[in-house]
Amino acid sequence: MKDLTLSKPTFIIDKKKSIDKIEAMFKKATRQGVQLRPHFKTHQNYEIGTWFREVGVRAITVSSCEMAEYFAFDGWNDITIAFSVNLNEADKINSLSSRINLNILLEDIEVVTSLEEKLTNKVGVFVEIDTGYKRAGLNPADTETIGQLLKKISTSDKLIFKGFLTFAGHSYFAQGEAEIQRVFNQYMDDMLRLKEKFGRAFLSLKLSAGDTPTCSIVSNFRGVDEIRPGNFIFYDLMQVLIGSCKREQVSAIVACPVVAIHKERQEIIIFGGAVHFSKEMLTTPEKGAFYGDVVELSGKGWKTEETGAYVSWMSQEHGVVKAPASFFERIKVGEFIGVIPVHSCLVANLMKGSTLIIN
Amino acid sequence: MKDLTLSKPTFIIDKKKSIDKIEAMFKKATRQGVQLRPHFKTHQNYEIGTWFREVGVRAITVSSCEMAEYFAFDGWNDITIAFSVNLNEADKINSLSSRINLNILLEDIEVVTSLEEKLTNKVGVFVEIDTGYKRAGLNPADTETIGQLLKKISTSDKLIFKGFLTFAGHSYFAQGEAEIQRVFNQYMDDMLRLKEKFGRAFLSLKLSAGDTPTCSIVSNFRGVDEIRPGNFIFYDLMQVLIGSCKREQVSAIVACPVVAIHKERQEIIIFGGAVHFSKEMLTTPEKGAFYGDVVELSGKGWKTEETGAYVSWMSQEHGVVKAPASFFERIKVGEFIGVIPVHSCLVANLMKGSTLIIN
Repeated sequence: MKDLTLSKPTFIIDKKKSIDKIEAMFKKATRQGVQLRPHFKTHQNYEIGTWFREVGVRAITVSSCEMAEYFAFDGWNDITIAFSVNLNEADKINSLSSRINLNILLEDIEVVTSLEEKLTNKVGVFVEIDTGYKRAGLNPADTETIGQLLKKISTSDKLIFKGFLTFAGHSYFAQGEAEIQRVFNQYMDDMLRLKEKFGRAFLSLKLSAGDTPTCSIVSNFRGVDEIRPGNFIFYDLMQVLIGSCKREQVSAIVACPVVAIHKERQEIIIFGGAVHFSKEMLTTPEKGAFYGDVVELSGKGWKTEETGAYVSWMSQEHGVVKAPASFFERIKVGEFIGVIPVHSCLVANLMKGSTLIIN
Repeated sequence: MKDLTLSKPTFIIDKKKSIDKIEAMFKKATRQGVQLRPHFKTHQNYEIGTWFREVGVRAITVSSCEMAEYFAFDGWNDITIAFSVNLNEADKINSLSSRINLNILLEDIEVVTSLEEKLTNKVGVFVEIDTGYKRAGLNPADTETIGQLLKKISTSDKLIFKGFLTFAGHSYFAQGEAEIQRVFNQYMDDMLRLKEKFGRAFLSLKLSAGDTPTCSIVSNFRGVDEIRPGNFIFYDLMQVLIGSCKREQVSAIVACPVVAIHKERQEIIIFGGAVHFSKEMLTTPEKGAFYGDVVELSGKGWKTEETGAYVSWMSQEHGVVKAPASFFERIKVGEFIGVIPVHSCLVANLMKGSTLIIN
């Protein structure tokens, strides 16, 4: 990495580390008869898509019609838009569903009628279930509403009910493997109960689940039919703190130029701010709120050891790094340091124009 | 606005409101013999650049070499990159300085030698002063270091010392006009002392200052030579809370489609998340941490009245809106609502591909 010519903040992706993780996740899933339908919102990148394809992945998840169009153009023909359907984008849905196998999400019975009027082709439908994240989806205990929605969907010749889908984002509030496992058990209990209730009426009903923390930790997928982790290809500081992965498994960082050094405050100013990282932050008792951990770059990438340095503040383009003397004294203006981001998906989205794949 | 066909999250900019603010700021500055050198990082948009040009603005500020290249290509030929110089981008600086009047920032004496070796043309230099924000810049009390730096710069035939520059970002921690005025008085005291000390040796020394809060509030610019506000063209919720502007002066919002409604929690789910807004947040006692205020769209744009609804949580593409019954009951899935963003600069950067100019 020190050998590479970098000039500005650059998102550095370690290909080998990333592919190792894809292979491991694919093996763990297929061994149990579970389909890996990875979420491509994390990387939004054709080249990285091919890494999944070469491992054997054939179906993907995205979070918008635009992202579906982007990957359909690259030959992906089995795509779930894991986002409550946006009625205003029916044209895009029609265009996509004329070319590929498209799945959308529904949760609102009133949407079905408006949607059906607009659709020109068949689309697969997953009904979203809120297993505890409290974002989108129906309450799994409210089987009456779910039943009414399924009945309504069944009357349509365009909407093909595929099954139940959940995103258990509350796994992001877990800490450590035991808590993550507990979130998995809880949401799978919810999902399996729904399958039991509606499985006789809908024989091919599938269960789709799988956030990065639970997919990373659980060894037994317990009856889920497909998993949709996305972030695991990179991981990030948030996942390290949750306990989804080890620090060494993070496979993407941002290399940032040092532009100023403030001896009196023992702070390093980097070119690297909210337009590169977003403003996702974490809070720990030692650091307070912070925006990333600093690592040293090395010939082959970056060193995984903790330096004790971290990004303590961020404005639009600037980052302020607090550093212990041991690290601070080695850094010079003009050099690059690495930052393990808090949330790699948001960084990948912002750094589309400045990404470098190594190894 | 309700007449317009929107399909996805869209950054809506009210042209008339924006130009009114440009004209007012330009008049206030020129009346006092102060040059308005607006910060274009806020909008990063050619068309909006022409609004400034038509009012009479000839010189601009940007925060990166790339942004300087972008605006130089559109004919802007007097640009300050208000960011501690990045030694790794000397090629871009050389290319720019061969075509336009370019100013850069310096604060580190050790950088001067490395920089001089790399430069091929003359560039203007502002020395950055930290008047209290504690990000970049030299301590104004440390006149010894400042003097040494000026001496070193003077020995160069490429580096043309222009003056002192400060970004008083600590005005963002102020609340109300009196506090903002106090920040202005304090940093101008610092800057004027420096001018007094070094003005005899450098007769054409200029003082460059001007964040949006102080430029919006102060009526007397007290000896500053140029001001560099950026955000004022849009303003945002942060500026409303600081007291830089009234809510009615905010001239850009994000229109977001409603994709789900949760009656039991009285929450609205919108297509609009961190990839549209960044994750900049504010905290108030009533709302806790939140990510934007919700307004109603109207035929001509949006209504400025408070609805009581606000974005309480945001993930990558989803926003969760908490709404009082009066607002909640009127909203249907498929409609659009407006969100006054916390920080419009970050939104403009993220929404480059989805911006609509009205009025």
